[in-house]
Formats: sequence, C-alpha cells, structure tokens
Amino acid sequence: MTKLTFLTKISQKWAEGKFVCVGLDQADFKFNKLIVDQTFDLVCAYKPNSAFYEAAGLIGRKSLEQIIKYIQKNYPQIPVILDAKRADIGNTNEGYAKEAFDNLGADAITVHPYLGKEAIQPFLERKGKGVLVLVRTSNPGAQEFQDLLVCGKPLYQVVAEHVMTWNTNGNVGVVVGATYPEELKIVRGIIGDDVPILIPGVGAQGGNVEKTVLAGVNNRGQGIIVSSSRAIIFAPNPRKTTLKLHQEIVDSLKR
Amino acid sequence: MTKLTFLTKISQKWAEGKFVCVGLDQADFKFNKLIVDQTFDLVCAYKPNSAFYEAAGLIGRKSLEQIIKYIQKNYPQIPVILDAKRADIGNTNEGYAKEAFDNLGADAITVHPYLGKEAIQPFLERKGKGVLVLVRTSNPGAQEFQDLLVCGKPLYQVVAEHVMTWNTNGNVGVVVGATYPEELKIVRGIIGDDVPILIPGVGAQGGNVEKTVLAGVNNRGQGIIVSSSRAIIFAPNPRKTTLKLHQEIVDSLKR
Repeated sequence: MTKLTFLTKISQKWAEGKFVCVGLDQADFKFNKLIVDQTFDLVCAYKPNSAFYEAAGLIGRKSLEQIIKYIQKNYPQIPVILDAKRADIGNTNEGYAKEAFDNLGADAITVHPYLGKEAIQPFLERKGKGVLVLVRTSNPGAQEFQDLLVCGKPLYQVVAEHVMTWNTNGNVGVVVGATYPEELKIVRGIIGDDVPILIPGVGAQGGNVEKTVLAGVNNRGQGIIVSSSRAIIFAPNPRKTTLKLHQEIVDSLKR
Repeated sequence: MTKLTFLTKISQKWAEGKFVCVGLDQADFKFNKLIVDQTFDLVCAYKPNSAFYEAAGLIGRKSLEQIIKYIQKNYPQIPVILDAKRADIGNTNEGYAKEAFDNLGADAITVHPYLGKEAIQPFLERKGKGVLVLVRTSNPGAQEFQDLLVCGKPLYQVVAEHVMTWNTNGNVGVVVGATYPEELKIVRGIIGDDVPILIPGVGAQGGNVEKTVLAGVNNRGQGIIVSSSRAIIFAPNPRKTTLKLHQEIVDSLKR
C-alpha cells in the first residue's frame, strides 16, 4: 500500500466538507485518545503542538509518539500536523525532519522562515510531507517584525511570495493566524488556490470563524485548515464544540 | 547555594580567557561525556543542538537530559546552551521554557525572532537564563530574508536593534554566524559591549577564527562564544582540536 501524501489526505477531507483541525495541546495520551475518538469524523486534521509534550519531558515525548501513531493506525485518512515550529541550518534540519516524519510519523510540520529556503531544503525534499511555513502568526505582537516594510510591502507578504517559489515539490503550505483576517485574505491572494493555509487562533485566541473562512478559502471554497485547541479539548463536550465549529465553517462557506 | 545565572557563568569563563563553545551534536551520552571530560578546562560553554537528539527519538531525549545534568553536576561553572531554535506564541513558549530550563536544566536557549518580543516573553522572564536570539544565521542562504532592506537597513540589523529593547532583564544575547564576519562586526556595533554573541560556524562550516574574533569581541576583548561542533567532536583528538581553537582565539585577541 502506498502511503498517502499530506496533500492527498487533506484534499480528501476538504472534499468531504471538513475543515476543522483539532489542536492536541496536552501531553496525556489517554486524554488525547478520547478527543480523537469522539471527533475523527468531523475533522480534516489533528495538530499536536510539540511544546506541550516537551513540557512533560520524557513522558511527553512518549505520549506524542503514541497519539500520532494511534491516529495513523486507526484513522489513516486523517493527516497529523506536528506543530513544532522548527528551523535550523540544513544539516541540522535533517535531524528535525527525521524526528517529525520518520520517528513520530507526522504528515506535516510547521517551520520558521528566517533561515531561508536553502536551510529548509531537508523538509522540502520530503515530497509526501507538508511543510507549513509561518507567514503571519496569531499572537498580538506578530506585527513587530512581520509588518516591517520591505520595499513598501510588509515582511509577511514578502515571506508568502518567497514561499511560493520554494514549492517545487508541491508540498508547501503557510500558517496565518485567524486573528488577522485581512492579512489572511491578502496571503490567499498571493499564494493562489493550490496552497493550504493552516489557520490557528479561532477559539481561545478569539479569531472570528466567518471572517476567517471568507478570507482564507480558495476559489474552490477549500484550502483552509481551521485549528482550535484549548477551546475544544478542554470543553465540557469536545465533540459538541467541534461540531459547532464545523457547522459554523460550513455555514460561512454558503455565504 | 544560589544558582549562578547564565551571564555570571559565561562572564567568569571569559575572565578566565576561555571563549570556545563545544557543540555536542551527537545523541550518545557516553560519547558526549568523553568529549566533556577532556575539554572542560578549555571551554566557556557547551551547546547540545536539540535536532541531533530528536533524530534519535526517545533515547535521544534521555541522552540530552543525561549530558546536560552530567555537566551541571560535574562542571557547574560551565553554562549549557540548548540550541533548540524555538519560538511559538506566548502561551506555548511556556512549555518550551519549562522543557529547556526546568526539565533539562539548560542555562540558555536559542530562539527565533519572527513572532516578536510579546511571544518570547516566557523566555525573557526567566531572569537567570540566557535567551539567545537568531540575528544572522551561519547558513549559505541566510541572506534570503535576513538581508531584506527595511527602510534601507538589512532585516538582521533591525532584529538586533529590537532585541536590544527586549533586554530589560539583562539576559538577552544574539546569534551571528562566523561565516559572516562583516555582519558580525556590525551587530557588535549595534548591541554594544554587554550582550553576548553566540557564534557558530567555525570549523566544519568554514568560518575564519581570527576574523570572527576581531569582528565579534566587545571593547573589553570579551563577549563572544565561539562554537564548533563537528570539527571538534569527530576529530581524532577532540582535546587537541579544542586546544588549537582556544589558542587561535587567544592569539587573535592579542592582535
């Protein structure tokens, strides 16, 4: 059996009308397993953030591997995005790619752009894996560097333009926070219809769902991975909260 | 006993005339222990790069903790820089800070600047710990973003200027590759005499030692952490290679 690529998996989920990504930001395997088992039919992806597992040390590392492998085994059609925000020089990135893709078995990883394409190459060369580059982050202070004007254009837009030229293997995506819908719309304009956008920041961070969807979708009404973490996993009823977000997205797409 | 801060530890080593940092870029504890035991009297710091440990999965995570704790126990005067190049939104960075400083016991960490000060805050708030911000990286493709002109000034210089304003706890440092001595000199000019510069890229990456030292030192002939990894740890005689680099630095400082 050939392994499905990240893009194939995520595209299939979009075709099924699913756009919610649940952020598994908690290091307890059993807790995560419960979340996954009650949301698998509603989501387009899962996104464990490495920091929450690292905070738990050795046990966290085990738990991260467990949950990714659990998803891959039981729900192999759902891609797992390792939100690790890595990036070092090329030689060193091979280590990070090995951990994310070979040891842990993730389908995609988030990366920082600062070192440029030449450094990111070991990730880009993994043709079946998604490489999601930070373009506009969801945090309140994102503008400090990301809005600096480069020849009259904010840096985040220049990063988005560059990232498009990195996409020779068709496995590149971008990350834009739901907290910045105007910037999200501009980025979609830059990257066209074929590049996925991972959009964290709905839920606890306060991003508006309808604005996010309308700003982020491509011309086919797809292309977005709308991620919520705390607001779903710590909800009294995670399935209900996921379903509500799913429905809000579906409703927004009809407008 | 009060724990020494990163800045106190590194300053003491500079006062002893030591500027070499050995990059422990290999996940085998016994291998690393041998390197440390034969170089401890020559170095100002050790720098394990997280990627090489992550590449080894669970065993690598154990080995990383082992070598840091071994150094802290046996050579508590020598600071350990965790070269992990982390950075996420603030809430999430607390997890990374916990892993680096509490679980692993590192004295300092390297971080990406892209999300800005507001996001980096959980690192900056650890007053005793060093927060070393990537300014100009050592890789051949560093210029792609780092040389973009912002109001006529390359981005890496703007990052260095910003980082200075982040330094309210006096625990900030910067990272500039030895492969870019001209940029190194400019950065030293921007940050003044009191901020440490971690300088990777001598050795396997080809940075020139004398140029690096002359460009990087502050007015007191100190302030630099000259890091070499592969060229030392895989040398036939790691102590001899470390001693040679140490001597080259000492000689350069006399010029």
